[in-house]
Amino acid sequence: MQHYQELAEYFTEIEALESAMGLMHWDRATYMPEKSGSYRGVRMSLLSKLHHEMCTHPKIADLISKINLNSLDEWQQANVHEIEHEYHQSTMFDAHLIEKLSNTSNECELIWRKAKQEDNFDAVIPKLDELIILTKEQAQIKADKSSINNYEALVDFYDRGQKLDNINKLFDQVLAFLPDFIEQVIDKQNSLNIKQQHIELAIDKQHQICMQIAKDLGFDFDYGRLDKTFHPFCGGSYGDIRITNTYDEHNALNAIMATVHETGHALYEQNLPKNYYNQRVGKALGMSMHESQSLTYEMQLGSSKAFVNYLSQLLKDIGGIDISFQELWHNINFVKRSYIRILADEVTYPLHVILRFKLEQQIFAGNLKTKDIPILWNELMQKYLQITPPSNALGCLQDVHWYSGAFGYFPSYLSGAIIAAQLFTKAKQTLDKDRLNKFDFSGVKNWYKTNIHNFGRKMPMNELILQASNKELSIEDYKNYLQNKYLYR
Amino acid sequence: MQHYQELAEYFTEIEALESAMGLMHWDRATYMPEKSGSYRGVRMSLLSKLHHEMCTHPKIADLISKINLNSLDEWQQANVHEIEHEYHQSTMFDAHLIEKLSNTSNECELIWRKAKQEDNFDAVIPKLDELIILTKEQAQIKADKSSINNYEALVDFYDRGQKLDNINKLFDQVLAFLPDFIEQVIDKQNSLNIKQQHIELAIDKQHQICMQIAKDLGFDFDYGRLDKTFHPFCGGSYGDIRITNTYDEHNALNAIMATVHETGHALYEQNLPKNYYNQRVGKALGMSMHESQSLTYEMQLGSSKAFVNYLSQLLKDIGGIDISFQELWHNINFVKRSYIRILADEVTYPLHVILRFKLEQQIFAGNLKTKDIPILWNELMQKYLQITPPSNALGCLQDVHWYSGAFGYFPSYLSGAIIAAQLFTKAKQTLDKDRLNKFDFSGVKNWYKTNIHNFGRKMPMNELILQASNKELSIEDYKNYLQNKYLYR
Repeated sequence: MQHYQELAEYFTEIEALESAMGLMHWDRATYMPEKSGSYRGVRMSLLSKLHHEMCTHPKIADLISKINLNSLDEWQQANVHEIEHEYHQSTMFDAHLIEKLSNTSNECELIWRKAKQEDNFDAVIPKLDELIILTKEQAQIKADKSSINNYEALVDFYDRGQKLDNINKLFDQVLAFLPDFIEQVIDKQNSLNIKQQHIELAIDKQHQICMQIAKDLGFDFDYGRLDKTFHPFCGGSYGDIRITNTYDEHNALNAIMATVHETGHALYEQNLPKNYYNQRVGKALGMSMHESQSLTYEMQLGSSKAFVNYLSQLLKDIGGIDISFQELWHNINFVKRSYIRILADEVTYPLHVILRFKLEQQIFAGNLKTKDIPILWNELMQKYLQITPPSNALGCLQDVHWYSGAFGYFPSYLSGAIIAAQLFTKAKQTLDKDRLNKFDFSGVKNWYKTNIHNFGRKMPMNELILQASNKELSIEDYKNYLQNKYLYR
Repeated sequence: MQHYQELAEYFTEIEALESAMGLMHWDRATYMPEKSGSYRGVRMSLLSKLHHEMCTHPKIADLISKINLNSLDEWQQANVHEIEHEYHQSTMFDAHLIEKLSNTSNECELIWRKAKQEDNFDAVIPKLDELIILTKEQAQIKADKSSINNYEALVDFYDRGQKLDNINKLFDQVLAFLPDFIEQVIDKQNSLNIKQQHIELAIDKQHQICMQIAKDLGFDFDYGRLDKTFHPFCGGSYGDIRITNTYDEHNALNAIMATVHETGHALYEQNLPKNYYNQRVGKALGMSMHESQSLTYEMQLGSSKAFVNYLSQLLKDIGGIDISFQELWHNINFVKRSYIRILADEVTYPLHVILRFKLEQQIFAGNLKTKDIPILWNELMQKYLQITPPSNALGCLQDVHWYSGAFGYFPSYLSGAIIAAQLFTKAKQTLDKDRLNKFDFSGVKNWYKTNIHNFGRKMPMNELILQASNKELSIEDYKNYLQNKYLYR
């Protein structure tokens, strides 16, 4: 027990440092003076180094080896397993490789920014190539140790334990129905003569509405904030969660739905197990589960009848805007084939993800040369969405992920949507419709708190999904959800 | 050179951690959610522990011992000396004593808060006694190593190298003229029938004025901020300096003069030697010099004819307030004997400091029992200021310093005022009056930047004062300044 205690205490120090780094990150996006960025950058990178040293300190392995697991309760055991796993991940690669990866991805991201602006993919090829080679090297080291394929090793960084076969199976099923489905939805939209119209609203009114929404969805402002910045994110640390948002006076729904999305992330963070907030087992699961929480709020709840009614009331009360339920619903759920993933609606969005997922697999199987990425990108865009990007800026240069070394991240966006549908289908069975119609969303918050958030990392994601929804993850509920929402309502 | 480099790099990590802790401190006072304080407290204390471990790491001594000072330039040599000094300070006391001191001062401060509210000095006696005994123990360890007296050892924590004899000499000279001087000033005020009237002004207007003042005094908002909070302070770290302020709509001058004061601190921090911003030699000198910078702006410049004219213009332009130069000047410089140090004017203020300084010396010489503090306090108040506090809340319970373990800090407030007068007397000789009268204060900023700020800790304070003002520190200029300002103008 003494060794466990010592290990746990050491991790409270690591968590405190992470919390400080989180604050520096948030502050940089919100209140930091304009030119202080270079100093902040240097200091953050020094603290990252310090953090890495702490996380790879041999005393972790030493303490773990001395712990008698039988003397620990379930949570403590899970905590030790988490720490051990993370320690192996951190110490698996030599410092030289990590440094080269970090430098190369920083360089590549800078080159990419300019290349994207100038629509010049050629300019980034050499550095991206270098980055891919280094990432392959890293992936192979991990793959060799766990007998998995190199791309699966990358996905595992973001979504621990996810099996590539499983993702492929789910995504192929989505791919099997979605292109035709999109056709049907767009036909229906056209037949109803639906057009998307943006809602104009002063920024302070939008902010007021967003504050109200976060509050009504259960975000606890005693332990959190919502601030304006350049892009929406959810940061901070347990006990002090910070959402940010960005506002466009010509399109109020952007900020509103971003708030709903980030509140989903924030509720996950705010409702993690309090007793383990500064331990590894008390952290949120991987990216898929996190994204599922934001999509639950943005898509499942956010476009429900009750919520759209609630929103139309808010727009009227605070914004002085009179908009019918129908009009608002179609505004939120308008479907259109387009080039840019982050601007895509939820129906076409999965194809953007699958495209990237397919390309990543080709890249890491060694079947796709860096210079040929735009060709395959455009082919798949045409195949999946029947449009071809007029430029690489609107094609393979649009996302920062690859150019900053984040290969294997994309699948979590779609996995998240599938998980969201399956969990919400289950959660809905317990929800009181009268309360929802009275704009009381506490039932949703409580279901997720009890069935998901409170578990932290006590069990792997797939096990938790099975326990919470009584079935293995499948696209059944996701498909039903899309069909009911876009065709049958 | 290699060992110096390694040592310097290690201190960039320490500085990065200090910067993070500084941000946590600032954020706690400004934007932190209401109830996140307990989490923040735990994390800050964990990082303090980590910081202490880094600052006392044996590798510091090891590297210092391997450095060949002759291979270094003057700045680098001074840097090594600073690091060595700090290392000795940090490693001089055993961890057990430091922890006991930290816990006891935290406990004592909590008891004090309640005791002050309830005007119950008895309630805090046992814990304060305990804290004094521990502080004596700490002071004695340091005193023994440096052959100084125990109280001098405490003063040295805040103002390195200050000699007690020297402070006593200066303060006794102040004490010799000030009580009579106060009498004369108050007589003059009465004969002119001057009354202090507070200026009412909406808080947003006050904030606007304060922002303008900070800017006009040379505070660089590209590398700094000014925010509202509960008490004014200057925090942040090099490249990102953060002033805070508090506003009272019934008394605009409070916030305005606090801004001038904090801007003085901030200009010191913003103009430290850039090349050494993350090294010990690049830090500001002790508390006296820091306070001298804020008092230079608040008192020397802030109540000059040019500045009061400037301020009356601002109050008119932004606040819509018409106030004559005379009225504004007397408002800022109104003299009155009163109980509370932090509310005292600059003429009576020194006596509040000297009183505390005398008591501290008695306490650490073992001549004053904790329970007798109120008696001696009230005696000296009567002797110096001819008033006796009606309660201990308005007497020896008013300041947090002793109850949080900060013995030896008070003298720096008066030393700062004396230094401010001597340096400004010199600086004034170089200032262009026409530019001052056109509200261009850049000459002031530049003089201090060149003669004080840019030196960091390259030389000890007394040496720097001598170099900048061509004489040893004395009360000559301070006395002249007070007489000219309050009697002869």
